[in-house]
Amino acid sequence: MYLAKIYVTLKPTVNDPQGRTIERGLKGLGFESVKGVRAGKYLEIATYENNKVTAEKQINDMCNKLLANPIIEEYHFELVQTQESNSA
Amino acid sequence: MYLAKIYVTLKPTVNDPQGRTIERGLKGLGFESVKGVRAGKYLEIATYENNKVTAEKQINDMCNKLLANPIIEEYHFELVQTQESNSA
Repeated sequence: MYLAKIYVTLKPTVNDPQGRTIERGLKGLGFESVKGVRAGKYLEIATYENNKVTAEKQINDMCNKLLANPIIEEYHFELVQTQESNSA
Repeated sequence: MYLAKIYVTLKPTVNDPQGRTIERGLKGLGFESVKGVRAGKYLEIATYENNKVTAEKQINDMCNKLLANPIIEEYHFELVQTQESNSA
């Protein structure tokens, strides 16, 4: 079994109103040293899949089909084995 | 200058309707091997602060005051130096 830690962020050229709002909020609280904020999503997906190559392919498919919008977002992920696999 | 990569997740005991919805969506798309999904936030905050200890303290303060809800969420972060610091 694997646990996928997935980070979805807006592409650097895309405007990030949520990040700008957080930035203004932080400055309003007195955090003057903040240079910029980018907001994104963090997802943890546990899968029963035991083959790492297959798991990687599936997570890529999930990101492209549902989790990320490839027009404005990019993603990366890491796979962590959570239990001794039987096949592999 | 430092870049803080911040991960905010719901505490394990807290219900995660967003994660459940994503899980159902993935299964509906045919990803039957999904065991569970937890949804969270991923934030990148760039700061002009050059002292790592001060930067860490500031990021902790930001998380507790604005970025995370300590009653239902937990957070962790890593600091990456983005430019040779002058003080430190």
